[in-house]
Parts: sequence; structure tokens; C-alpha cells
Amino acid sequence: MEDYGRFLALLASALLVGFVSVILSLVWVFHYREGLSWDGGPGEFNWHPVLVVTGFVFMQGIAIIVYRLPWTWKCSKLLMKFIHAGLNTIAMILAIVSMVAVFEFHNAKNIPNMYSLHSWIGLTAVIFYSLQLFLGFAVFLLPFAPVHLRAVLMPIHVYSGLTIFATVIATALMGITEKLIFSLKNPAYSASPPEANLVNCLGLLLVIFGSLILWMASRPHWKRPPNLSYLKSYRNPLRKMYHLN
Amino acid sequence: MEDYGRFLALLASALLVGFVSVILSLVWVFHYREGLSWDGGPGEFNWHPVLVVTGFVFMQGIAIIVYRLPWTWKCSKLLMKFIHAGLNTIAMILAIVSMVAVFEFHNAKNIPNMYSLHSWIGLTAVIFYSLQLFLGFAVFLLPFAPVHLRAVLMPIHVYSGLTIFATVIATALMGITEKLIFSLKNPAYSASPPEANLVNCLGLLLVIFGSLILWMASRPHWKRPPNLSYLKSYRNPLRKMYHLN
Repeated sequence: MEDYGRFLALLASALLVGFVSVILSLVWVFHYREGLSWDGGPGEFNWHPVLVVTGFVFMQGIAIIVYRLPWTWKCSKLLMKFIHAGLNTIAMILAIVSMVAVFEFHNAKNIPNMYSLHSWIGLTAVIFYSLQLFLGFAVFLLPFAPVHLRAVLMPIHVYSGLTIFATVIATALMGITEKLIFSLKNPAYSASPPEANLVNCLGLLLVIFGSLILWMASRPHWKRPPNLSYLKSYRNPLRKMYHLN
Repeated sequence: MEDYGRFLALLASALLVGFVSVILSLVWVFHYREGLSWDGGPGEFNWHPVLVVTGFVFMQGIAIIVYRLPWTWKCSKLLMKFIHAGLNTIAMILAIVSMVAVFEFHNAKNIPNMYSLHSWIGLTAVIFYSLQLFLGFAVFLLPFAPVHLRAVLMPIHVYSGLTIFATVIATALMGITEKLIFSLKNPAYSASPPEANLVNCLGLLLVIFGSLILWMASRPHWKRPPNLSYLKSYRNPLRKMYHLN
């Protein structure tokens, strides 16, 4: 792999930034808010940021770049597809549970649902993400789709994946903005209490995480080499070129 | 150009969505808010959304895809660089004026500056945008940078440009969220008054505009063909290939 060291440094940075984001979301809900519970109270709402940051941002980001990890290039493409689809499925389930938590909290407190731009774009993102997962499964994982259909749909699949990922991060930033305005009253958000600065930092980290993932996912020379697993039994120049023999 | 009809349809859609976004921002401030003025009052604040939507989103989006308009391929690359840099310079000036409007409004009303995630990421985006413009000017427009430096920096320039553009849209969505929560009191944002729905639609249109621009900017087959202007006097196979003779 070209620039192997640089790839590793970026991957380590993305993992670190993603991991710190998850920690900050936990510090937010446990140290500054009401912790986690499932009783219609604020503790149920708090599952929303924790699961979105953990699943819909961090796990989705890793799912996006999983094909680019060079030590997986000796694994079969099918295995990698299962890992890619599996991580995205877990992320989708966490995203749906995180929405259920908010709806239940709203209903228990008689707060209207689906009025904010955050909720409009967030629900749209979850629907598109589920569609993307379903179509990806049908076209790229099941063995029925003809090769030319896969070739036509692959650029759309990649573009949709990256666009949904960026949209999810934008939606998380709107959610952070909403929550800090609504929950910080005395002192208010505008007085910059420690909670506000901590959660602003979480928002910044989500943008940095997204930028790192998008850079790694869009470098053509870090792409997994064409599927060579069916050549496994041959020692040929193409496999030699990719150091797979 | 391959898929010329599809490119035109997408361009027309992007122009329409961008134009309607600008109109919605004007309807917002003139029909629902205090219009535009420059006196430290709400009318001065209102320049912020109007200039951001017009300059920092719409004009920046057009600047990103200006090289891809096939009828410009017969123009010299240098002229197109001037148009690209010129549009981005106007967008940067509008973004800076839009920030000055908010600072002056805040100062007149004794509202703290720079406490929100919107302001943190927005200011960072303006700084990176200005850096990107300065470096782009120094490396790609002035004739001093060696070819190999340009080749190394071009992928970074493209990536930074698209990432800053997406970040600007995410920041606009946060700004919409903030402004609707702060300004809608009776009825509140959560009661979904007409203003809330109109501005939510503006937010959705910004996401659609961004998605269209990112699709057009990332299709390799819609890229401007390599610089052939210095071959203008020749009738050769390369120019023939691109129908430039």
C-alpha cells in the first residue's frame, strides 16, 4: 500500500477522535445530565446522543473505511461485505433505538414530535440509510444482481453512503445545538458554562472525525485492490503486484 | 461530454434549488422578521442568513462546479481560474460581512459572542475558507508554483473545498435551528407555525443543493478535459477526442 504510514496515522487519529467523542457523550449524560434509564424521563432521552455518537457516527464511519484496511485485503471480498453490512446494520439499529428514546421521552412529557429541522433531516437520514442498507444487501451482497448493474450502482452507493454520513453529522450538530439551548437555563448556553464548552468540543470532534473518514474514503490509491480472491490458487504477476502471494 | 443531458438536468435543479433558497431566506426576513437594515437592530442580524445563503452556500456551490460547465471548456484555463477565484472571493466577502452583522447586533444588544457550536464551527469554516482561497491563489493562479507542487496540492485543494462547503451547510442548519428557537416564542417553534415550516424547508433545500453540487463535482467523467488551450493552433487527435477542433 502506498503511504502506509500516513494511512495508519490517519486511522489512529480517526479511532482516537471517535473514541473520545463517545467518552464525551457519556461524560455529558452522566456528569452533567441525568444518566441513562428507560422510563420516559430525561435519562431515556439521554440514550439519543449516546447511541447517535456511538452507532450512527462512530460505527458508520468505521463501516465506511473497513474495505481500506490493508490487512483485510487478504480476506475474501464476501467476508468484508458481511463486515461492512453488519456494522451498518448495528449502526441502523442503534439509530432507530435512539429515535424511539426521543419519541417516548417527548410523548411522556407532551412535547410535540417532528417539528424541528433536526427531526426532519434526522428522520430523512435514517430512512435513506435503511434504504441504502437494503439496496446494498440486495445488489452487492446477494449473488443475483448482474455485474453491469453492480458497476452502474456502485458509484451511487458510494456517493449516497458518504452524503448520508455527512448529513448524519450535520444533524448531530443541530441536535447538540437544540439540546444545549433547551437544557441550559441557569447559567444559560450564552454564559458558556463548562457543560456548554464540553459539548461544543464534542461537536467539533464529530466534524474532525467526519473529515478524517471522508479523506480516507476518497483517496483512490487506498482503495482495496480489485477482487483477486478467485485467483488465490495462482501465483501470477497481478497478485505479486499487490504483495498477495 | 458523456451524459450531457443528465448534467444539464442536475445543473438546472441545483440552480433552481439554490435560487429558491435565496428567495426563502428573503421571504423569511421580510415577511416574518424585521427586514434588512444596518443599525444594530434585528434588521442588521437578518443580513446574516441572507448573505450566508446567497454567498457562502449558493455562490460557493456554483464556484465549485464552474470548471465542469462544458461550454466553458473552450475558454482558457486561466480565465476559468479567475472566475472560480472571483466567485469564491465574493462569497468570502459576503460571509465576512454576514459575520460582522451578527457581531454588531450582539454587541448592541449585549448578547455574548462566540459561545455556541454554530459560532465555533462557523468562524473555523470562514478561516479555513480564507486560507483555502489564499493558498489556491498562491499555488494555482500565480505562475510561480512548480508543476509537481500543484499536482501534490490539487487533491488536497479539492477535498478541502468540498469539506468546507459541506461544513458551511451544516453550520447554516445549526444557525437556522438557533434562530428559530430564539425568535419563535408565541407560538413557539414546537407549535410549528408557518415561519417554522418555511425555514425548515429552507434547511432541507440547502441539504439538497449541497448534495447536487457534491454529486456533480465528484463525477470523474464530468471533469474538464486536461488543459488543451496551448494546443489551440493544432488540429490533433487529443483535441479531436474532446471535440475541441
